[in-house]
Amino acid sequence: MNKIIECVPNFSEGRDLLKLEKILDVFRGRHNVKLLDYSSDEDHNRTVVTLVGEPDALKAAMVEAIGKAVELIDLNKHEGQHPRMGAVDVVPFIPIRNVTVEEADRLAREVAMEAAELYGLPFFLYEKSATASHRENLANIRKGQFEGMAEKMKDDMWKPDFGPRTIHPTAGVTAIGARMPLVAYNVNLATNNLEIATEIAKKVRHINGGFRYVKALGIELEDRGIVQVSMNLTDYTKSAIYRVFETIKMEAQRYGVNIVGSEIVGLVPLQAIVDTADYYLRLENFNIDQVLETRL
Amino acid sequence: MNKIIECVPNFSEGRDLLKLEKILDVFRGRHNVKLLDYSSDEDHNRTVVTLVGEPDALKAAMVEAIGKAVELIDLNKHEGQHPRMGAVDVVPFIPIRNVTVEEADRLAREVAMEAAELYGLPFFLYEKSATASHRENLANIRKGQFEGMAEKMKDDMWKPDFGPRTIHPTAGVTAIGARMPLVAYNVNLATNNLEIATEIAKKVRHINGGFRYVKALGIELEDRGIVQVSMNLTDYTKSAIYRVFETIKMEAQRYGVNIVGSEIVGLVPLQAIVDTADYYLRLENFNIDQVLETRL
Repeated sequence: MNKIIECVPNFSEGRDLLKLEKILDVFRGRHNVKLLDYSSDEDHNRTVVTLVGEPDALKAAMVEAIGKAVELIDLNKHEGQHPRMGAVDVVPFIPIRNVTVEEADRLAREVAMEAAELYGLPFFLYEKSATASHRENLANIRKGQFEGMAEKMKDDMWKPDFGPRTIHPTAGVTAIGARMPLVAYNVNLATNNLEIATEIAKKVRHINGGFRYVKALGIELEDRGIVQVSMNLTDYTKSAIYRVFETIKMEAQRYGVNIVGSEIVGLVPLQAIVDTADYYLRLENFNIDQVLETRL
Repeated sequence: MNKIIECVPNFSEGRDLLKLEKILDVFRGRHNVKLLDYSSDEDHNRTVVTLVGEPDALKAAMVEAIGKAVELIDLNKHEGQHPRMGAVDVVPFIPIRNVTVEEADRLAREVAMEAAELYGLPFFLYEKSATASHRENLANIRKGQFEGMAEKMKDDMWKPDFGPRTIHPTAGVTAIGARMPLVAYNVNLATNNLEIATEIAKKVRHINGGFRYVKALGIELEDRGIVQVSMNLTDYTKSAIYRVFETIKMEAQRYGVNIVGSEIVGLVPLQAIVDTADYYLRLENFNIDQVLETRL
């Protein structure tokens, strides 16, 4: 039973490819860690890296990569359009396979603790790892950016969770934590009446009394002459795709409206697809490891 | 869009591990081929190897491995309980991901043609690659085994598809071809009446007028006090899991019997799970590559 966690560190360097290569090299040729993707943006002067790995191997790789970034990136000289507060700006850990969000949270804390000790870098825990509700949202933490952070951290509200009480002189401060993968899921209704999509969106979304991990809006698909309940599922393990679909179907019936279809936009975790098949086929004792899913 | 084919060659050597290692070494450290598993049986004196790979890389690996087995294994000295006719007894190619059975068939033919030419080894095409219906079933081809094969091949019914008209003096003859992955799928009924399971099994299985790629039997689960429609789906792309499940549910209703649950035994291709979710959620334009399924 392999445990797989995804990690998507954002480094505040998107122009100096030599520096970037030195950071990426930390992830290459490692046992039980795979560098899936990286993408640099010159305007943002920022690189987003996607890794997957077993928890222990991923931890060792991330601690080392943070060290390399602290060594190479100086925020005092950093210019770019994207808001940033650290050489390693944010490090989310996302449970992918046979891993709970609690395990991803533990990994985030361990990486933060080790890296804080080794490099004298302060860390804020965010999202599911946040130690207070005002720290859940990354934008709140990052407000003031690198330049304003030393002042901001004097306030007890913004005492870091690990590391020194003030910023690292060149590497600033890093946000780290566990979050769930996001599923973008839309259900298309056989009507052009936007009001119906909006009413149904209200019934399924958290803010109006619906499912805890559903954000929803009614929108028009003008070219198709229909409307859509457009959603983000922020935790598919607790607000399941099939449950949201069936609830929308049920509510649409009240208006005499049929479901045309639904769509998953972008990537979806295998577990979410397995959960759907499991529900409808009433599977007994089915395990994700039974899926022959082979990529090379 | 990675194309992935599985290959499960059976080698007639399960005792001499030094020879076996030399064959397995052909599969190791190759680009775009992964050795997933091998399992040797001393009594059968046979080793079953499981590989996955991209078509071209898999072809090169299998041609080389067949050469190594022809060089090392002498069927004249082979003893074991399992029926066998060649040093490489059988080589099935199974489409796994973004590959049709026709592409797997083409790969089987290319490997057979090259290996026949290189090593003077005769090949029979079997299963979905068979060139005549009496050659679809491996047991039919293998009848007579290594010792009787030279005589059997004099008959035009058993002229090989590639290679010389008679056996290789030490390596015999090889069966090669494409086949679909098998899905073992059972549906449990809320009754202890075996007759109902048997009647429903007849309605869904090919032999009695049911789905083309379904084999089914009614059986009792004595410890649970219920009965089961126990099935093999021999082509889940044409006789889909959800269609079989819904048909059984419908037929059970006629007896006033509910479905307790269903079970997938062993491995199931990702595509079969995706097809199930796709049907029930009425997904539009969903592609298997959207599944974040990450193994290392």
